[in-house]
Amino acid sequence: MDYLKIFSPATVANVSCGFDSLGFAVDAIGDEMTFTKTAKKGVKISKITGADLTYNVDENAASAVVQKILKEANANFGVELTIHKGFSPGSGLGSSAASAAGAAFGTNQFLGNIYSELELTKFAMFGEEVACGSAIADNVAAAIYGGFVLVRSYEPLEIVKLPVPEKLRVVAIHPQIEVKTKDARAVLPMEIPLKDAVTQWANVGGLISGLYTDNYNLISNSLVDIIVEPHRKKLIPFFDDVKQAAINAGALGAGISGSGPTIFALCKGNKIAKKVLKSIEESYKNTEIDFTMFISKVNSEGMKIIESK
Amino acid sequence: MDYLKIFSPATVANVSCGFDSLGFAVDAIGDEMTFTKTAKKGVKISKITGADLTYNVDENAASAVVQKILKEANANFGVELTIHKGFSPGSGLGSSAASAAGAAFGTNQFLGNIYSELELTKFAMFGEEVACGSAIADNVAAAIYGGFVLVRSYEPLEIVKLPVPEKLRVVAIHPQIEVKTKDARAVLPMEIPLKDAVTQWANVGGLISGLYTDNYNLISNSLVDIIVEPHRKKLIPFFDDVKQAAINAGALGAGISGSGPTIFALCKGNKIAKKVLKSIEESYKNTEIDFTMFISKVNSEGMKIIESK
Repeated sequence: MDYLKIFSPATVANVSCGFDSLGFAVDAIGDEMTFTKTAKKGVKISKITGADLTYNVDENAASAVVQKILKEANANFGVELTIHKGFSPGSGLGSSAASAAGAAFGTNQFLGNIYSELELTKFAMFGEEVACGSAIADNVAAAIYGGFVLVRSYEPLEIVKLPVPEKLRVVAIHPQIEVKTKDARAVLPMEIPLKDAVTQWANVGGLISGLYTDNYNLISNSLVDIIVEPHRKKLIPFFDDVKQAAINAGALGAGISGSGPTIFALCKGNKIAKKVLKSIEESYKNTEIDFTMFISKVNSEGMKIIESK
Repeated sequence: MDYLKIFSPATVANVSCGFDSLGFAVDAIGDEMTFTKTAKKGVKISKITGADLTYNVDENAASAVVQKILKEANANFGVELTIHKGFSPGSGLGSSAASAAGAAFGTNQFLGNIYSELELTKFAMFGEEVACGSAIADNVAAAIYGGFVLVRSYEPLEIVKLPVPEKLRVVAIHPQIEVKTKDARAVLPMEIPLKDAVTQWANVGGLISGLYTDNYNLISNSLVDIIVEPHRKKLIPFFDDVKQAAINAGALGAGISGSGPTIFALCKGNKIAKKVLKSIEESYKNTEIDFTMFISKVNSEGMKIIESK
């Protein structure tokens, strides 16, 4: 194989109650990346479209990951990359994660799949570190494993792939404002009441049980975040209105995607998802803020190979 | 039906990471209770063996629950109770919960099972309030539903029954010392670091995933409590030694049962459980503290009817 074109999904991290430990991949939105094997060792980015990102191979999340894997594997070839960003950096949908995870997946194909999903996640976390300054796992793991994932532990890294109920749909709105990850971290308290933590982990348990048993009511009841959302929602204009609009239209729940500003809603079935999309759209179109929206399945399979030769 | 004899199981609440939200029922240890229908309305306790408990029907957890249910159902009969406590109050194995849950279950049989498990749990919580001053749900729900349970929410009450991997065994040691629930609560911090809470809820997620997928490694990795155990273990002499002895002998994990002093270990299979029992016994027999021990399956079915006529 000398050429590969892949789709690397956008991802929703945190998922209400599961701050810093849950994430899922999206089907409709993501990056397209191509990999061309070159005789010359090393990595080169020949084209980036859809966003204004650096071509510096040490600073770009994708090329930094390719470089690290080629070195680690002692590869006797190089890789030329193109990246088409299908969604905006800074949206809270794991933009750098999609690039980093895609880079790890694609390079591994050229190496004959010598690395496991867990190892690919570690490589992709290096890309997150290059792009954002911290090696977080929830977005990259969701992109690589697909479906819902739980980051059970960082030391050692342990990722648990969770099942996805068939009718689960995600609706998301991306208000065109900037929420800096640094600010989103800064608004969080260092300490929280023990009793709130208990409420939150009971909801994490409920959400995960709901995913295993296709229990949409339980998923809905558990999609509650009493710890992070109350602080972060202040950074997202009209968050409460969007959430209410989603719930009113029948969504199972709604919350902040990653550190925002994208707001996601989970729904049972296409019909309700379409109503939720419309309801959110109605609520936001009277604001002065531009926005984009999408509706999607949860992506169960993770990375997709579009073309190879 | 005019006569009923039942077994109401002991229960382990908290289960390491799941403080105030997880619990499971034990097969080998519990109370035996008899219920005799009487023409005269109201409730009477005719015999209590195995422990020194009050015969005052308003103050005894079991009779208080029977009384409440009979009144609520507007029953045209009364109940005469006998209670044989199969394990000590104050052990941390849900003694008052076994009585209260058994009382709810037995009375419901006489009423033709008009109440659901959730409703029985609410009645039994009243018994906990009578006995301990607070209407906690984890022990009574585990006794009524059987197996593992998650208390997802109190307002409204929502209990999730979790699956039990077939080979799961529990080994427990009850050091004959008193740990007052009040003291066990008093040592806990009101506030905890957010990053510790994240670690804990990732472990709750891991434990529940492990139960759904029979993944004993994941159960083992997730049986960690970084929030409550470090404080409460100080109230239980030689806790660290017992835990280490259990782990050394192959236990999946070990922790404090309820608010102690009983220490439980979960194991995969009988063979390892027997080794763990022996290892803990060896570690404790050189202390000056008396103790009892047991080995058991996790009780999947909850309450058992021993005799009815």
